[in-house]
Amino acid sequence: MASEAVREALREFVAERDWGQFHTPENLAKSIVIEAAELLECFQWNVEADAEKVAHELADVVTYCHLLADKLGVDLDQIVLDKLEVTKAKYPVDRARGRSEKYDQLPD
Amino acid sequence: MASEAVREALREFVAERDWGQFHTPENLAKSIVIEAAELLECFQWNVEADAEKVAHELADVVTYCHLLADKLGVDLDQIVLDKLEVTKAKYPVDRARGRSEKYDQLPD
Amino acid sequence: MASEAVREALREFVAERDWGQFHTPENLAKSIVIEAAELLECFQWNVEADAEKVAHELADVVTYCHLLADKLGVDLDQIVLDKLEVTKAKYPVDRARGRSEKYDQLPD
Amino acid sequence: MASEAVREALREFVAERDWGQFHTPENLAKSIVIEAAELLECFQWNVEADAEKVAHELADVVTYCHLLADKLGVDLDQIVLDKLEVTKAKYPVDRARGRSEKYDQLPD
Repeated sequence: MASEAVREALREFVAERDWGQFHTPENLAKSIVIEAAELLECFQWNVEADAEKVAHELADVVTYCHLLADKLGVDLDQIVLDKLEVTKAKYPVDRARGRSEKYDQLPD
Repeated sequence: MASEAVREALREFVAERDWGQFHTPENLAKSIVIEAAELLECFQWNVEADAEKVAHELADVVTYCHLLADKLGVDLDQIVLDKLEVTKAKYPVDRARGRSEKYDQLPD
Repeated sequence: MASEAVREALREFVAERDWGQFHTPENLAKSIVIEAAELLECFQWNVEADAEKVAHELADVVTYCHLLADKLGVDLDQIVLDKLEVTKAKYPVDRARGRSEKYDQLPD
Repeated sequence: MASEAVREALREFVAERDWGQFHTPENLAKSIVIEAAELLECFQWNVEADAEKVAHELADVVTYCHLLADKLGVDLDQIVLDKLEVTKAKYPVDRARGRSEKYDQLPD
C-alpha cells in the first residue's frame, strides 16, 4: 500500500474530528518527541522489547510525522531521499565504513 | 515516489557503510528520540521555524523510523493504518470532535 | 554547596541577559527534553560514554529544571521528596524488589 | 532542605528495592528523556498546564538526574555551576542580551 493511502486516511481521520486546529507545526513537533519517548520506553530497562508494542509506538511517531509533512506541504518520501544525499556526502563510504562516530569525528 | 524506493535507498546506504551492526532496535529507538528532539529544537523559543530546517530534521526522524521498521520486519504504512483503527475506536467522532483531551478524559 | 547558591547564580545569569521573557513553562519543558536527548546522544551507539561529556549534558538538563521550578515557585528538592512518597506507595518493597516492571505489571 | 537529604532518601529508596542493578548510566539517560517527554506532554496542545501535574513530572526528571549524578560520582549542584561558567563565556551579556539565538548565530 502506498503512502498516498496513508495520507488520505490520516486527513480524513483528522477532518472528522476537527483536530486540524491543534496541529500547528510546533504542537506536532512536540507530539513527535512525546511519542518517540514512549517508543523508547519499550527499551527503558532492557535491550529487548515486545515487537507488537514497539510497532504500535513506532506507528504513533510516524503518524505525527505524516501530519507534520502535510502541514509543511512536503512529501515524506522525498525529504528522506533529499536528506539521504546530504548524509551520504557527510559520511563517505571509505571513511565511515564500520564506524559509529559523528562525521566531524571520523578519522581522515 | 513510493516508500519501496526509500527503503531500498536506505538499505543500500546502510549496507555500504556496514552500519547494520549498530542498528539494534534499542539503538534505533534512542536515535528516533534524539532526532525528534532536534526537530523540536527548531521550535524551542518560537512557534515559527525555518521550513527547510524543519523538513531536514523531520527527514532524520523518519529515516530512523524506516530503519526500525526494517529491523522489525513491518511495513511502515501498514502499521500506521493498523494503529489508526485502534485510535479511531479510542476517539469516536461524536465524543472527540474539536477536543484535545486524552481519550480517558473526554466527556461522555 | 547548597541549591540556594545554584538558584541565585542562575537567576543572575538569566537576569543579566534579559532571558526571562523566553522562559515560559512550555518553553522550559521543551528545553528540558531537548537537553535530555543531547544527554542520551552520549549513549546513542554505546552503553559507555565519556564521563565529563555526560556530566556537562546532565548539567544542562538540571539547569532548565531549576529554571522551571523557579517559574512554578516550587522547591526542586521538596517536589522530589514529595513525589518519592507517591512512588514508594506505588512500588511497595515486597512487590517491587529486584523487578523493573511498571507498578501496574508487578506480580501480586 | 538541602540536596543531601534528597540524595540519601533516593539512595535508601533504590537500595530497599534492589534497583541499583537497573541503573546503568545509559538506562538512566533513557529514563531522563522519557520523563522529560512526559513533562512536555503537559504542554502538548496548550501553553498552559496544571501546575501540580507539571511539578510531579518535573520531579520525575530530577529524580533520575540525581540517580545519574550519583552513578557518575558528581555533585549535581557543582556540575550546574561549572557548566554555567562555560555558558556564560559562550553567551556574553553584551551580545546575548534579549536574544534567543544559539551562540553561533548571535550578532557580533
